[in-house]
Amino acid sequence: MTQQTRAAKEDQLLEAATHLFKEKGYHSTSMQELAEALGMQKGSLYYYIDSKEELLRRLMERATSFMTNQIDEIYGTDLPPAKKLRWALENHAATMMENLDLVAVYLHEYRNLPPDRLAEALAVRKHYEQVLMQIVEDGIACGEFRSVNVKMAVFGMLGMLNWTHQWFSPDGPFSSQEVAATLAELAMHGLTRQPDS
Amino acid sequence: MTQQTRAAKEDQLLEAATHLFKEKGYHSTSMQELAEALGMQKGSLYYYIDSKEELLRRLMERATSFMTNQIDEIYGTDLPPAKKLRWALENHAATMMENLDLVAVYLHEYRNLPPDRLAEALAVRKHYEQVLMQIVEDGIACGEFRSVNVKMAVFGMLGMLNWTHQWFSPDGPFSSQEVAATLAELAMHGLTRQPDS
Repeated sequence: MTQQTRAAKEDQLLEAATHLFKEKGYHSTSMQELAEALGMQKGSLYYYIDSKEELLRRLMERATSFMTNQIDEIYGTDLPPAKKLRWALENHAATMMENLDLVAVYLHEYRNLPPDRLAEALAVRKHYEQVLMQIVEDGIACGEFRSVNVKMAVFGMLGMLNWTHQWFSPDGPFSSQEVAATLAELAMHGLTRQPDS
Repeated sequence: MTQQTRAAKEDQLLEAATHLFKEKGYHSTSMQELAEALGMQKGSLYYYIDSKEELLRRLMERATSFMTNQIDEIYGTDLPPAKKLRWALENHAATMMENLDLVAVYLHEYRNLPPDRLAEALAVRKHYEQVLMQIVEDGIACGEFRSVNVKMAVFGMLGMLNWTHQWFSPDGPFSSQEVAATLAELAMHGLTRQPDS
């Protein structure tokens, strides 16, 4: 089997696991069901993955990296803070709406990670939140943003975006890009200092 | 047994069920565990409640009424739309943070309601969202709010408030009232037309 075939199979496996964990929950999904969903023998599954826990770990890593992987790049640019923040928020919202099943599994199941992996996942999330808080602080310092409570502002904005997993449907009237742009604009407007204020 | 004693017992029962459903999930909690948590015999439990499903139904009604019961009163006042909205948002956020366990059970378990009860619960939620949308539309019509997409604005603001169930802790540095006021202010500022815009 070529590397490419293996990577493609692993990707199928992660997709199938995302779907099954979403529908049935991590604890209620068996490796047998996963093998059936992929049209494989259960034994063959273990060629790709050591255990169900390993699968959960890889799904959680996938979700975390999808959501957070651009933040250091965005922060490292020399854009003004407001432009960085809008980029980060739109990116966050669109990624979320384009990976609804994975996000649902993440939110329901990350606490099932073994303690060391859970600590790693939480550290990545914390870094992400801290970079966002830094961008808001930079924006307040340079006068682009109002003087708000930085932590509450960041969690408030993330909430606005993250809640899409409760109501956004790809079959609805708006595309993920449209919703992302609208929510990011609302969040930014909430933060932005008006010329007369 | 007096009416008052019965009401107090039922309240204890709902509190204990909220706690257990939160910790273990609805499906994994037995009536036996519930009886033990209350220091009762399992048989006595059935004096207060017919079934576990009945208990879930009552918890979901409780959560829905906590979150939505003031909206018609707020809408019915003759306050300007911006004042109505701020009142509704602060109320929503504070109620949420003061009932975190009940909210968690609601979000995880409402889909386990039998179909007719689920339809009722969703109708109450929809009415609530529609009144909020009406307030935003009224605010746009009278020039208090910017001309935004009303549905996205309402779901965005609700997301901002609802996400507190992921991060707010009663042991943290801010009270539920402080967080509610700050988030409502941010959401309102995002919506409000500035004098110069």
